[in-house]
Amino acid sequence: MTPPPPAPAKPIGIAVIGAGYWGPNLVRNFQASPAFRLRWLCDLDADRAQRVLGGYSTVQVTTQLDEVLADPDVDAVAIATPAGTHLPIALAALRAGKHVLVEKPLAATYEEGRQLVDEAAERGLTLMCDHTYCYTPAVLRIRELLHAGELGELHFLDSVRINLGLVQRDIDVVWDLAPHDLSIIDFVLPPGVRPTAVAAHGADGIGAGRACVAYLTLQLSNGGIAHIHVNWLSPVKVRTAIFGGSKRTLVWDDLNPSQRLAVYDRGVDVASPEELEDEQRRDILISYRSGDMIAPALNEREALRTMVEEYARAITTGEPALTDGRAGLRVLEILQAASVSLAEGGTMIKLDEGQQA
Amino acid sequence: MTPPPPAPAKPIGIAVIGAGYWGPNLVRNFQASPAFRLRWLCDLDADRAQRVLGGYSTVQVTTQLDEVLADPDVDAVAIATPAGTHLPIALAALRAGKHVLVEKPLAATYEEGRQLVDEAAERGLTLMCDHTYCYTPAVLRIRELLHAGELGELHFLDSVRINLGLVQRDIDVVWDLAPHDLSIIDFVLPPGVRPTAVAAHGADGIGAGRACVAYLTLQLSNGGIAHIHVNWLSPVKVRTAIFGGSKRTLVWDDLNPSQRLAVYDRGVDVASPEELEDEQRRDILISYRSGDMIAPALNEREALRTMVEEYARAITTGEPALTDGRAGLRVLEILQAASVSLAEGGTMIKLDEGQQA
Amino acid sequence: MTPPPPAPAKPIGIAVIGAGYWGPNLVRNFQASPAFRLRWLCDLDADRAQRVLGGYSTVQVTTQLDEVLADPDVDAVAIATPAGTHLPIALAALRAGKHVLVEKPLAATYEEGRQLVDEAAERGLTLMCDHTYCYTPAVLRIRELLHAGELGELHFLDSVRINLGLVQRDIDVVWDLAPHDLSIIDFVLPPGVRPTAVAAHGADGIGAGRACVAYLTLQLSNGGIAHIHVNWLSPVKVRTAIFGGSKRTLVWDDLNPSQRLAVYDRGVDVASPEELEDEQRRDILISYRSGDMIAPALNEREALRTMVEEYARAITTGEPALTDGRAGLRVLEILQAASVSLAEGGTMIKLDEGQQA
Amino acid sequence: MTPPPPAPAKPIGIAVIGAGYWGPNLVRNFQASPAFRLRWLCDLDADRAQRVLGGYSTVQVTTQLDEVLADPDVDAVAIATPAGTHLPIALAALRAGKHVLVEKPLAATYEEGRQLVDEAAERGLTLMCDHTYCYTPAVLRIRELLHAGELGELHFLDSVRINLGLVQRDIDVVWDLAPHDLSIIDFVLPPGVRPTAVAAHGADGIGAGRACVAYLTLQLSNGGIAHIHVNWLSPVKVRTAIFGGSKRTLVWDDLNPSQRLAVYDRGVDVASPEELEDEQRRDILISYRSGDMIAPALNEREALRTMVEEYARAITTGEPALTDGRAGLRVLEILQAASVSLAEGGTMIKLDEGQQA
Repeated sequence: MTPPPPAPAKPIGIAVIGAGYWGPNLVRNFQASPAFRLRWLCDLDADRAQRVLGGYSTVQVTTQLDEVLADPDVDAVAIATPAGTHLPIALAALRAGKHVLVEKPLAATYEEGRQLVDEAAERGLTLMCDHTYCYTPAVLRIRELLHAGELGELHFLDSVRINLGLVQRDIDVVWDLAPHDLSIIDFVLPPGVRPTAVAAHGADGIGAGRACVAYLTLQLSNGGIAHIHVNWLSPVKVRTAIFGGSKRTLVWDDLNPSQRLAVYDRGVDVASPEELEDEQRRDILISYRSGDMIAPALNEREALRTMVEEYARAITTGEPALTDGRAGLRVLEILQAASVSLAEGGTMIKLDEGQQA
Repeated sequence: MTPPPPAPAKPIGIAVIGAGYWGPNLVRNFQASPAFRLRWLCDLDADRAQRVLGGYSTVQVTTQLDEVLADPDVDAVAIATPAGTHLPIALAALRAGKHVLVEKPLAATYEEGRQLVDEAAERGLTLMCDHTYCYTPAVLRIRELLHAGELGELHFLDSVRINLGLVQRDIDVVWDLAPHDLSIIDFVLPPGVRPTAVAAHGADGIGAGRACVAYLTLQLSNGGIAHIHVNWLSPVKVRTAIFGGSKRTLVWDDLNPSQRLAVYDRGVDVASPEELEDEQRRDILISYRSGDMIAPALNEREALRTMVEEYARAITTGEPALTDGRAGLRVLEILQAASVSLAEGGTMIKLDEGQQA
Repeated sequence: MTPPPPAPAKPIGIAVIGAGYWGPNLVRNFQASPAFRLRWLCDLDADRAQRVLGGYSTVQVTTQLDEVLADPDVDAVAIATPAGTHLPIALAALRAGKHVLVEKPLAATYEEGRQLVDEAAERGLTLMCDHTYCYTPAVLRIRELLHAGELGELHFLDSVRINLGLVQRDIDVVWDLAPHDLSIIDFVLPPGVRPTAVAAHGADGIGAGRACVAYLTLQLSNGGIAHIHVNWLSPVKVRTAIFGGSKRTLVWDDLNPSQRLAVYDRGVDVASPEELEDEQRRDILISYRSGDMIAPALNEREALRTMVEEYARAITTGEPALTDGRAGLRVLEILQAASVSLAEGGTMIKLDEGQQA
Repeated sequence: MTPPPPAPAKPIGIAVIGAGYWGPNLVRNFQASPAFRLRWLCDLDADRAQRVLGGYSTVQVTTQLDEVLADPDVDAVAIATPAGTHLPIALAALRAGKHVLVEKPLAATYEEGRQLVDEAAERGLTLMCDHTYCYTPAVLRIRELLHAGELGELHFLDSVRINLGLVQRDIDVVWDLAPHDLSIIDFVLPPGVRPTAVAAHGADGIGAGRACVAYLTLQLSNGGIAHIHVNWLSPVKVRTAIFGGSKRTLVWDDLNPSQRLAVYDRGVDVASPEELEDEQRRDILISYRSGDMIAPALNEREALRTMVEEYARAITTGEPALTDGRAGLRVLEILQAASVSLAEGGTMIKLDEGQQA
């Protein structure tokens, strides 16, 4: 990714909306960034907001969004409220001329997300989605490797994100966890390769009223397959993804800090089709490579810090953020199609957005 | 499982048919068992058979199945030839009055498998399927735990079997690897819980002419879900299964000899439905247990040794083997349905056998 | 450990001295504790101190220790400066009537440490050593298990703490890393078991002018052995300790968050000596237990938060902290003896303090 | 290592002496090797020997060593009996003109080992020590890397070999397990680097009458350090060695089949001494490399198979085996010095042999 710009002469005035689970992380990172000046923390519960700031802070607390949006020193907002409230809050902010960062998912529905994208485009404001994982050193490196063709053609992608998670009241495990995997896939796939269809299977073993375990299968435009396993009920935590390419295969194990990425130069080679004369000879033409594995050195840097810098870059330059509103929209389209598939017992649902974008 | 019977007065005369990949393991284990006397190793390639026996053996080699079946000292055969040849060889053996053990899968199709089951039943002979994994100490213990209700109700089962595998000439990755997972599932599921439908997705990234990566989703009769990931293209080897129950969750990592099984007493509890008054209260009624993990001590014993003893027990007592022909048939039905689903792009295919058995 | 006391009516006024590597962690945790009110951050470099506090803080910065000690609202200090400066700073604070918390090691020498212990005792002030690891949930549990006799008699203790570490300018790897292991050993050993002698071997492979790799062997008063491997040059990070007991063995792997502790109920049993008639029968009298392993559930709680609460408890109640000055002194005695041994090529050096304390 | 020679026109007649723990492995591998013809299995217990061969073997059994040595078809023997019997058996074999392979350790004492080396040299016969680990693909690769200077200068070597082991009746844990580590160290150290002294610490926690836990520290002739931890009482199995070099560091984890070797290109660099002006500048001159890790592809080959081929090569060519009698002697010298150190409480004992060899 492009290097962060020099800190602007005057820091960007920012307000964080929402002091729940994610808000404190945004507060901490905006405070640490020289590119921003944190003006407000806004939450319906003023005590909660004050607790997040602690007893030694000069940042202002309010329960009134209007007050924040009326402040001319606020150039931008960061929204970390439940998905169902993203549309009204973000829309109000955009209409007040503020740049907007939204926690994933971009909105509660594809249609709502599209409203936000259109509104921001119309007004020439930055709309960015906080797809945090995309800014981890590991995912940034994966993107580099895939875009540079280091793995060759991508044949399969297998992502597992399971652990004992909070059973959400309003959304199922697909909407809770899969945005992470889908935003990563959207981020790292090389130009020209997009998901074209999705099927979803799930189960609600515990009678929670919504899927607690789910599997998504995505067809890719290059004939490959991507598969996602999300699960709230696993007592063991697994966060692994395998990117199987024609030249190399990459394994990402996010819970192994000493070896998050491993690139295997071993695999299966097949002679190109024109060399094949008949079906019977095929087995001769498949060979195995037993090569080395390289675990690239990664720096350890908090993803949110990089995300915050990217937000500053997008605001300052007017260029779209790496995970802009459109990226959030592509993720929403797949989530919505997955919900349809889940309801229909696993039908493969075609995607439109993927093709256009 | 029941203890092995005392070695019979006279050992069972056995012949191994097939000296390819799996045959040598059968040869070694039958030779080591006091319950059997190995009479013949039969293969179309006599040199290969002799190489398997080595230069110091008194066991006879032949290329003629007839010669083996005509030997009155041969009471039983063990067939380790390609699946396509199981039907004629096993049928000939049964018709010659020999007990039959067949390498997985039982036959090339469900219909062929049924012929074998019927023929053996009619003649009162043992027909057993070498579902080797079922006889590992780990799987035997999983069966015990599930049958005893130690995990509670089974909510989900997630099985991963991936590594750089030989791309087979005649079968896809589902028929090559999934028989292991399906036979294990058949073996460990408690009475009353059966697969009722299966859907399969796959991809042939490398142009091998058949699926090299595949995902199977099984609906279980208790509302649970079972999912299998099989893959020939992964440079990392994974053999893990998670059995998520209402009381406990079990994780089997077959590549971790020091801790193959782990039983987690942590999970999500939901108050029973009758206690629920309305949807809004549900989030209060879900609670989390953060309990200990127990890794049970397992003895280390070669699965094939236990399998060979079970074959002797079935022959001697006339009782069905733990993995008898019908078990092989149930696996074949799912494989066949999975192939249909794969061809149809992932349709969920209903299963009949599972319901009856 | 005892539960934290109710927050006092008036919070304890605290000042942090030193804004280097460790100071920011103290600042953050004192700010988060209702038992304390952070008044000052003091550092010779005011800019560094201000950077630690960030741009939104109401905490005062100073470069003058005198100013801090003269403030009647300051009841206690926390010192996170280089070890060589601990004596003058802590002594000044005690003489100003302030309670004192000191980063490990307590002082640069045993003699200096003793001065601090004596001064604090004389004045009836709390002197506590920030042996942070002792307050991790894992070490607190290990202490419980050892004190309750759950492992039986401790036979051996093997601690490994290696990774690519900063080669310090003024101290060797023993003084840099071993205080962690020695303070943990001091903390968890059951009453009556103490180190009685220490030998040290080391090497300065890279020509740094001081040992970068070292091994400490401690004789325990019960006949057992404790061994510590500290190493600045290892590209792999290992933080493991094995506590081998007569009944059970405990393994602590601090880098495995999902299974930090594992208690093995397997081991070697020996019939008690009185049952032995002669040497030749001994091999019959040794037997092996192949039992289960239990990984106890641990809560995830920041150690410094618990340490800060313990400091508040000690100040409020006047009771010695769990890691009081005397604990720091016992660690210093071993470090000093280890340095002598290292210089003499590995001689076993007797310890006095261990016996008395 | 050099490629195996073409199988000789006439296979080498071989007899295995000892059908206990290790003998069966030798029997299996000599039978599988075209370079050898297994003539006899000799054991004081004929039934045990027959059980090892099984019920289908043409190999002869005897309880009489004389009978074996008198057989002109026997060119060589392989001795897998307790160490105390190596001298008389090997001496008798050499005097009968047979080549001799001896299980580790070469003999019960250095003096006995020297007798064997001298006798073999005098008679021009092959004397080889079965240092099996040296023939694993991993150790062969480590040797290559160290001899080629790929790691730079060796600074430290840390070897851990612990698990629940059989408490031996006649020897302590040093003599039981450390021969593996010492033979590996002897095998891989580059020319010119040798152990020059050894110190040993141990404990007999369980009252077994001999050390069950021990630590060996070896000084190396290049100023480096090697350290060995051997332990019979650990319920967890660890077999790891770290080779820390000036350029790279290698980690060998023998229990991780998918990644046995890892070469880290990260570490600490120090400017060369001549560039240093004064002590104060040293901290500027130490820098850290944060490089990639490479896990080299290794073939999976049974070490004993390679060892057996090396025995054939040594016999056929008359050249010393890679692990010849002198290698066994160097290991014996260190073991004997370690025993002296252990008895003296950890004194550093100088080695002679290392310097000469």
